[in-house]
Amino acid sequence: MKREGLLYVISAPSGAGKTTLCNAIIDLFSELGQSISFTTRPIRAGEVDGVDYYFVTQDVFKQMIAAEELVEWAQVHGNYYGTALKTLTDARSNGRDVLLDIDFQGALQLKKLDLNVVFIFIAPPSFAVLENRLRGRGTDSAEVISRRIENAAVEMAQARWYDYIIVNGELDQAIAELKAVISAQRCRGDMVFPWIEQQFNVE
Amino acid sequence: MKREGLLYVISAPSGAGKTTLCNAIIDLFSELGQSISFTTRPIRAGEVDGVDYYFVTQDVFKQMIAAEELVEWAQVHGNYYGTALKTLTDARSNGRDVLLDIDFQGALQLKKLDLNVVFIFIAPPSFAVLENRLRGRGTDSAEVISRRIENAAVEMAQARWYDYIIVNGELDQAIAELKAVISAQRCRGDMVFPWIEQQFNVE
Repeated sequence: MKREGLLYVISAPSGAGKTTLCNAIIDLFSELGQSISFTTRPIRAGEVDGVDYYFVTQDVFKQMIAAEELVEWAQVHGNYYGTALKTLTDARSNGRDVLLDIDFQGALQLKKLDLNVVFIFIAPPSFAVLENRLRGRGTDSAEVISRRIENAAVEMAQARWYDYIIVNGELDQAIAELKAVISAQRCRGDMVFPWIEQQFNVE
Repeated sequence: MKREGLLYVISAPSGAGKTTLCNAIIDLFSELGQSISFTTRPIRAGEVDGVDYYFVTQDVFKQMIAAEELVEWAQVHGNYYGTALKTLTDARSNGRDVLLDIDFQGALQLKKLDLNVVFIFIAPPSFAVLENRLRGRGTDSAEVISRRIENAAVEMAQARWYDYIIVNGELDQAIAELKAVISAQRCRGDMVFPWIEQQFNVE
């Protein structure tokens, strides 16, 4: 008996190490894949339509919004990004688990739907560590780093409504915790009981 | 900041491998201990009061029932067995996690209280495997085995209201799953957010 796929939403303040954690965990679970978003931004060299994103025109994207085909979307620097409901329902019915790496606004949009989503928040261990990591990247100006730290201070309050919070101090421990959270979902009563009912003819 | 202790209730049909799993998991988590029950049955050679059980008289036990000091209790072969609320609340406030190995009736009594308990059901992979295991023990008569199988058929329906179901086919995998379930609870939002609030001055 095939189980339903599960949806995992992972959000984090910038610099918490979300991308590294997501990549590590996708390598660990063969049936777990990253959700492919729709976007109106131009395709870049090396990107593949249907792999990196589904690349669509602004008209198509706006039609999808109007038809309520997107469970979450946002406009960033004039380009639209969003997740289609169909992407999620297809994965679920095929027993595939999907990881959605989305920001707090997108996560909140999803939270309002009744989609059996597991919400995971990645937190830095402290503001000091967050600042060090952002500086260490060497990609952002001091001003941008300050703004990211200020944002993080606000974003930490969002952790309140997440199902799980992984504090990413030691990467290996954070990976182990994220792995445990995902493994545990597969043992959830609502995931396993349909199998029990069938196997033991429970009435 | 010290976190609250968590309570784990583990139930299973006879022969599902619960005791082996409980012992394995207690060895894995240093801050996890088995709950010590109160009983009126006579102490046996080698047993220690306050370690194996708290041994009390029937009068004391009945007073505890009357004073509603027990979260669950049962009478088996004329002896009383029960778990004191104080055992659980003390462990919780000391940040110690407690494993309660109790039957479905006891678990249901606990379910009705609001104690932040994680309910875990250990299931055999099939009736055939269950029967083989019960026969393999060599301790029960054919009649007793038949009765245990019949009970199991009824008990499997109880899995419906458990938070997690561990199907114990391969012992190593079942241990890994139980470990993941326990590790995951420590990442639960309600367990970690108080730390986040303090660490990041979340308002």
